[in-house]
Amino acid sequence: MHIAVLGTGMVGRAHAGKLAGLGHEVLMGTRDVQATLSRTAPDEMGFPPPGEWLKDNGAVKLDTFAGAAGHGEIVLNALNGEAAETVLRALGESLLGGKILIDITNPLDFSKGRPPTLFVSNTDSLGERIQRALPKTKVVKTLNTLTAFLQVEPRRLAGGDHDIFVSGDDPEAKKTVVALLEEWYGWRRITDLGDITTARGAEMILPLWVRLWGVFQTGLFNFKIVK
Amino acid sequence: MHIAVLGTGMVGRAHAGKLAGLGHEVLMGTRDVQATLSRTAPDEMGFPPPGEWLKDNGAVKLDTFAGAAGHGEIVLNALNGEAAETVLRALGESLLGGKILIDITNPLDFSKGRPPTLFVSNTDSLGERIQRALPKTKVVKTLNTLTAFLQVEPRRLAGGDHDIFVSGDDPEAKKTVVALLEEWYGWRRITDLGDITTARGAEMILPLWVRLWGVFQTGLFNFKIVK
Repeated sequence: MHIAVLGTGMVGRAHAGKLAGLGHEVLMGTRDVQATLSRTAPDEMGFPPPGEWLKDNGAVKLDTFAGAAGHGEIVLNALNGEAAETVLRALGESLLGGKILIDITNPLDFSKGRPPTLFVSNTDSLGERIQRALPKTKVVKTLNTLTAFLQVEPRRLAGGDHDIFVSGDDPEAKKTVVALLEEWYGWRRITDLGDITTARGAEMILPLWVRLWGVFQTGLFNFKIVK
Repeated sequence: MHIAVLGTGMVGRAHAGKLAGLGHEVLMGTRDVQATLSRTAPDEMGFPPPGEWLKDNGAVKLDTFAGAAGHGEIVLNALNGEAAETVLRALGESLLGGKILIDITNPLDFSKGRPPTLFVSNTDSLGERIQRALPKTKVVKTLNTLTAFLQVEPRRLAGGDHDIFVSGDDPEAKKTVVALLEEWYGWRRITDLGDITTARGAEMILPLWVRLWGVFQTGLFNFKIVK
């Protein structure tokens, strides 16, 4: 499958690396290919610069946001939350219309320090903003509730016995995404929360998540719904 | 132990009934005792009027907010979220100062319809508002993340193998509350999130909770942290 992964950070790398390993043709999108490749310093999380990561993951190719989006039958939004809406709006429906956009971003606001707050919440969500910006694109919010490593390797934690959610207005697109998450990553527990407004709940779990990260000093945990 | 339970709704009843059954001297607080007892219609959730419930739970006595608060060595805030801060501020530190206030309320706002939004979130929380209103009271936010029946009977779901949280500025008060939740209700998995600002995360899980309620059509579920 032709897949676009927008963003070269931890989340984008986890998905691009995993999907290329499964044999998919993955283009990773960035704002400026040369600028991204010329970075030599580790990022603020201590991860190696993108060029180094790409050398170790030769099956993943780097392209512009537009190049990647044009290539992808499915597009993964792994952009920085603050940049996501602007980048996606600029790409527009000519590149994204009719496609499924898997939205993994969180509206984290670090401008007031850490732990972050959310720059949109409660009566709106980043998932909804993106859907409003691109009404012909099938936005499915998912996977934003746990750390990138576990997003693509759920079985590494309790054999995969923990939960994720999908939110979106297009029932068929959600079914497709659920099937892909099962096939690609081995997810078994995926709850359809409802339309894209339910992304509010999925995004608003982040303030609890970041506090639990603070307590456990690791992101290797997830929520399981017990019922 | 002398315990005050403020509020006569589903949450207050669950705690008052359980604690009285354990042999504690429980006063349930309400705004106007006669008005509360004279109600004859079921409430909006279909539960019987308070007077009827009190007849079936003879060990629980009804008093004014002030009467109950004065009686309690420990005070449980099971008030309606929108009323909580006003009622507690009116009671004031003369009745509450120095005491542990177990804050179970959620800042649910039904004014824009259902599912509810939150009237405070993200950069503040109801737990923090109450703590600011009563700086000498030891506010411990807990139990607000699951349905009342399970708050007092965690073993009825998966043998109690699911999680709750405590948030508060006073470490000793949190330890006391953790010990009481273990002793009273049998809780085994209680995570201390940190100071009272961590109540934001615990309250912001509600928008996801209400959507899951919508999917499952029952509140008999909870989150388990898998790590």
